[in-house]
Amino acid sequence: MKTWKTVAIVGVGLIGGSIGRALLHKKLAQHVVGVGRDLRKLQRARRMGIVTEVSHDVEAGVREADLTVVCTPVASIVEHVLRVAAACPSGALITDVGSTKSAIAAALQGKKRLGGATFVGSHPLAGSEKSGFENSRTDLLEGRIVIVTPSASAPESAVRRTVSFWRQLGAEVRRMSPRDHDRALAATSHLPHVIASALAASTPAQVLTLAATGWSDTTRIASGDVRLWEQIVMQNRGHVLKSLDKFEKVLSSLRSSLESGNPRQLKTILAKGKQHRDSVGS
Amino acid sequence: MKTWKTVAIVGVGLIGGSIGRALLHKKLAQHVVGVGRDLRKLQRARRMGIVTEVSHDVEAGVREADLTVVCTPVASIVEHVLRVAAACPSGALITDVGSTKSAIAAALQGKKRLGGATFVGSHPLAGSEKSGFENSRTDLLEGRIVIVTPSASAPESAVRRTVSFWRQLGAEVRRMSPRDHDRALAATSHLPHVIASALAASTPAQVLTLAATGWSDTTRIASGDVRLWEQIVMQNRGHVLKSLDKFEKVLSSLRSSLESGNPRQLKTILAKGKQHRDSVGS
Repeated sequence: MKTWKTVAIVGVGLIGGSIGRALLHKKLAQHVVGVGRDLRKLQRARRMGIVTEVSHDVEAGVREADLTVVCTPVASIVEHVLRVAAACPSGALITDVGSTKSAIAAALQGKKRLGGATFVGSHPLAGSEKSGFENSRTDLLEGRIVIVTPSASAPESAVRRTVSFWRQLGAEVRRMSPRDHDRALAATSHLPHVIASALAASTPAQVLTLAATGWSDTTRIASGDVRLWEQIVMQNRGHVLKSLDKFEKVLSSLRSSLESGNPRQLKTILAKGKQHRDSVGS
Repeated sequence: MKTWKTVAIVGVGLIGGSIGRALLHKKLAQHVVGVGRDLRKLQRARRMGIVTEVSHDVEAGVREADLTVVCTPVASIVEHVLRVAAACPSGALITDVGSTKSAIAAALQGKKRLGGATFVGSHPLAGSEKSGFENSRTDLLEGRIVIVTPSASAPESAVRRTVSFWRQLGAEVRRMSPRDHDRALAATSHLPHVIASALAASTPAQVLTLAATGWSDTTRIASGDVRLWEQIVMQNRGHVLKSLDKFEKVLSSLRSSLESGNPRQLKTILAKGKQHRDSVGS
């Protein structure tokens, strides 16, 4: 017997596609319904073995789903969760893969409209500058961290089912409040993204042919989808600003070191940066 | 007949070691002399097929060298070039692999002490956060850009020999003045390095376990050698400060977008960053 009878994936992109592949490859679900607007793309995903059924109608697609994973851009997650909740079976579980959690949790908090369904937020730390189900991989979540962010009112049984879902896909699960999640991710993901973008944007176009490995690594994530990242950063702008404060403090110390010609502060920054970087590994 | 009878490499690290490997692999030199302070390490490099002879004495090591490549940290390049020039055969060529070029060119400009030797500066864009000859590779320079930065007084024949040396190793050569080099590299290499360091340094240690691919890519070069990079950045601080000005202007526009909640400027930065990044490729 499969663990899940029917899993619906709303938004079959890099993450949604990789979840579908893994569910089918590991034989964890009987049916995986891909839900999206573009039926032709969904049918291609079905032919690629990413989903078993397709629907361009959210309500129809989730009707049988004991689990729905909402994988749409963060600004439309709340709307999708509400539509899924209104159409899915009673007792069903809904989760998401959004990069911000507080705004979503706040919008869904105390909503009676979830009916018999339960929402527990999730965030798999498995992004990429690539997107689309064409880049999806069966092992994308293998060994990756997924942060599960239940709101205070979420029933413990639903939280446990969510945790177990991600573990089945090979992920390592951490549990955090939506607020702690957003504060941490501002520092580890959202600020790095805007810094990479600002650095790439500020590099004069005429010297880009001299960009080597260092520039390319440092700016790699600037290649990410503009609309998706605009939503993520704006939704979490309070915490991103606090991380930016910390960064600018270091930058100002760097500037005075360069202006004065005294390498002391520069050395401190290079040494602390190396220590943090080396502690994370490749 | 080999192209070079004897090439001396002063400082057998990642770049020096890769040059030695490539010279021997491509049968471009009869003798490759590794010069450094640690004789035991040099002997290990010889056993690994990176050099054919070793010397812990600069003067003795370059006595027969028709070409010497100085691969030491930027702050000691001038001193090494002068020592090499005093000991190498008349008519010999000296180049280097330093990441900054103006300070070195200025210090050597008009020096009579170069005797019969000629110095032409070079900078292979083939760095890495890794170091040491243990990480050297025969193909490190294959397809990479090497910037050759002759001072105005360098004889054209010596410049052509330098260009041809790097081409023999598989590199693509660009010719620039030391000053143009330093201005461009401040933007494409030195600023990215300090930004990566500042970002890594400003990330609170307690959230580093949540760092995923994005953070790791953006901060990768912060793992580089602190002492080497301190020298590079300080030697080129004038141009690095000008690049920092441009970056901070973008950052301040980002900040007002986040503070006001109006995504317009954020979107402009994300879009321009993506455009620049995509134009460079992986």
